[in-house]
Amino acid sequence: MESERIYEKRGQSNVARKSKPGYTIGVDLGGTKILAGVVAEDGSVVGAAKKRTQAEDGPEAVLKRIVKTMEEAVGTAGVSVADITAIGMGAPGVIDTARSVVVSATNMPGWTNIDVGKVFRQWHDVPNLISNDVRVATFGEQLAGVGRGVKNFIAVFVGTGIGGGIVVDGQIYVGGRGSAGEIGHMIVLADGPFAVGGSVRGSIEAVASRAAIERDLRAAMAAGRETILPQLIPDMNVKFTSSILARAVDKGDALTMQILQRAAHYLGLHAASLINAFDPEMLIYGGGVIEALGEWMLAPIRNVAKQYSLNKVNLDKVRVVESKLGASAGVVGAALMARRGNLVAS
Amino acid sequence: MESERIYEKRGQSNVARKSKPGYTIGVDLGGTKILAGVVAEDGSVVGAAKKRTQAEDGPEAVLKRIVKTMEEAVGTAGVSVADITAIGMGAPGVIDTARSVVVSATNMPGWTNIDVGKVFRQWHDVPNLISNDVRVATFGEQLAGVGRGVKNFIAVFVGTGIGGGIVVDGQIYVGGRGSAGEIGHMIVLADGPFAVGGSVRGSIEAVASRAAIERDLRAAMAAGRETILPQLIPDMNVKFTSSILARAVDKGDALTMQILQRAAHYLGLHAASLINAFDPEMLIYGGGVIEALGEWMLAPIRNVAKQYSLNKVNLDKVRVVESKLGASAGVVGAALMARRGNLVAS
Repeated sequence: MESERIYEKRGQSNVARKSKPGYTIGVDLGGTKILAGVVAEDGSVVGAAKKRTQAEDGPEAVLKRIVKTMEEAVGTAGVSVADITAIGMGAPGVIDTARSVVVSATNMPGWTNIDVGKVFRQWHDVPNLISNDVRVATFGEQLAGVGRGVKNFIAVFVGTGIGGGIVVDGQIYVGGRGSAGEIGHMIVLADGPFAVGGSVRGSIEAVASRAAIERDLRAAMAAGRETILPQLIPDMNVKFTSSILARAVDKGDALTMQILQRAAHYLGLHAASLINAFDPEMLIYGGGVIEALGEWMLAPIRNVAKQYSLNKVNLDKVRVVESKLGASAGVVGAALMARRGNLVAS
Repeated sequence: MESERIYEKRGQSNVARKSKPGYTIGVDLGGTKILAGVVAEDGSVVGAAKKRTQAEDGPEAVLKRIVKTMEEAVGTAGVSVADITAIGMGAPGVIDTARSVVVSATNMPGWTNIDVGKVFRQWHDVPNLISNDVRVATFGEQLAGVGRGVKNFIAVFVGTGIGGGIVVDGQIYVGGRGSAGEIGHMIVLADGPFAVGGSVRGSIEAVASRAAIERDLRAAMAAGRETILPQLIPDMNVKFTSSILARAVDKGDALTMQILQRAAHYLGLHAASLINAFDPEMLIYGGGVIEALGEWMLAPIRNVAKQYSLNKVNLDKVRVVESKLGASAGVVGAALMARRGNLVAS
């Protein structure tokens, strides 16, 4: 892999660079928004920018917006592009990391075999590295978040979908075909509902993701259940964001609370499956739903997880915690991945 | 750990021993039966014996029977006890491998902190090693079974309960508290039935183990469903063994077939969860139910697993196969573990 070789060389000159380690850029490409950050060696974000993805405009327009977001982040950081020593990006979907190509991206029309590395090099010719978004975010938590120094942990990101990353012995575990960590597609409710836009029934994503929660809320509203949601959402055609859900909970909306607590129950069963199978030292929860609702979701997840865990010995040592980096996990992970040249921490 | 140190020394004299490598004994202690085998260096069983555990007689009586079973196995092999260079045993429950003590054993009254190592040494003073039964069987499949040379695989044993072992990068993965691999307690049917004699609801063990199948058959019979089972089982108070279930299937008993196929469906969903989360190269199925019914169970498991797998790329490379060693996996694994001094293959 080209970039890894470049990085190995750079790694050898680390000592010489110590006095001026430079900054790396991390990009978190999502279906809704692009986040970019200029990140220092210790994982701190010294400048950041954000734009709407507008994926419907196609890859070329989105790539231009990614470059603009990076430029803005560099401006905010008060550094110059020349100070940037590497660029990393996390993207949703299948990535050919060796060639910096996005093979296919979830919910992004036209993203088939898009050579992102070429665009990055044209903007600023430094090494770049692209990987799967949730793995990159897991890496961020591992190096600069709550997973620091934890040998075996699993990160669970609960957003529109549910994804995750598995760290075994300090390394991101990728599995036989490179697709390990698709923990959103573990089945918790046999023959349950289909995942929104998916073909797997009864997976945790199908019953506890933001999209599943929205589906259940809309069905309940169609059936005439009372809720204050229409007062909080000006246009019922747009999606129910996690922050809208949090506002409904704040206002004590019974329907929203009921459906979210049901999702937390399922997430707790899913957590127990992970604990029973993997016996991790830690489960780290992130993603929009967790960022918006925090302990209100985590407490029942933790409670159900421990109740369904088989091995009760030292069960308090299995920590079920919230992500420390929150929405920045992807940006920080991507920047640190670019700095290291790979997703292996130890 | 004493025995490991002893083994390291023995390992160093491997070359000198090559012409006469000796035999090791493997014991598979189960709630129903004790199996012992004299095993050669290549994993072949040169002599074996079997006794009923009669766990109700208590640990002392069972330990005597274990020694008797080993003696018989040595006799069958046509070797002398002096030819035995080490003893290994797999036991159900929590094992303190470092001290060769069974801390607690599932369904074995009185088995609390039983010093098995001492009894083994009194019989024949060679190194001994005791570990968890399903891990030992997984190790057998890895070294001498269908898992040979496979870096990442998961073994699933479907018997009265459901257990398993996870191999990551050629090593048995034990997790943070040493209890990884309890894949029988992954939840597949949220809020489903309780596991027989257990406190976890909706786990794969609660819906697809032999005990769960028996529970469902008895409930259906009590509700008046037609079945030929009473013709096959002289005393309805004794348990429905896997071989009885297989005979009912052979005779085309609709009720038994329906309940078993439902279990296979759940096992397929469980397999998909394992594939989506771990992306193993192989899933190996063993245990009484699989030994008795083979492909009749495995085909639907494989079919459902593939249908619910997210990553379809190279999905044919994820092999869902039957154990090669069958009922001998525990004996062979225990003997090879004793020979190596640990459960690490590579």
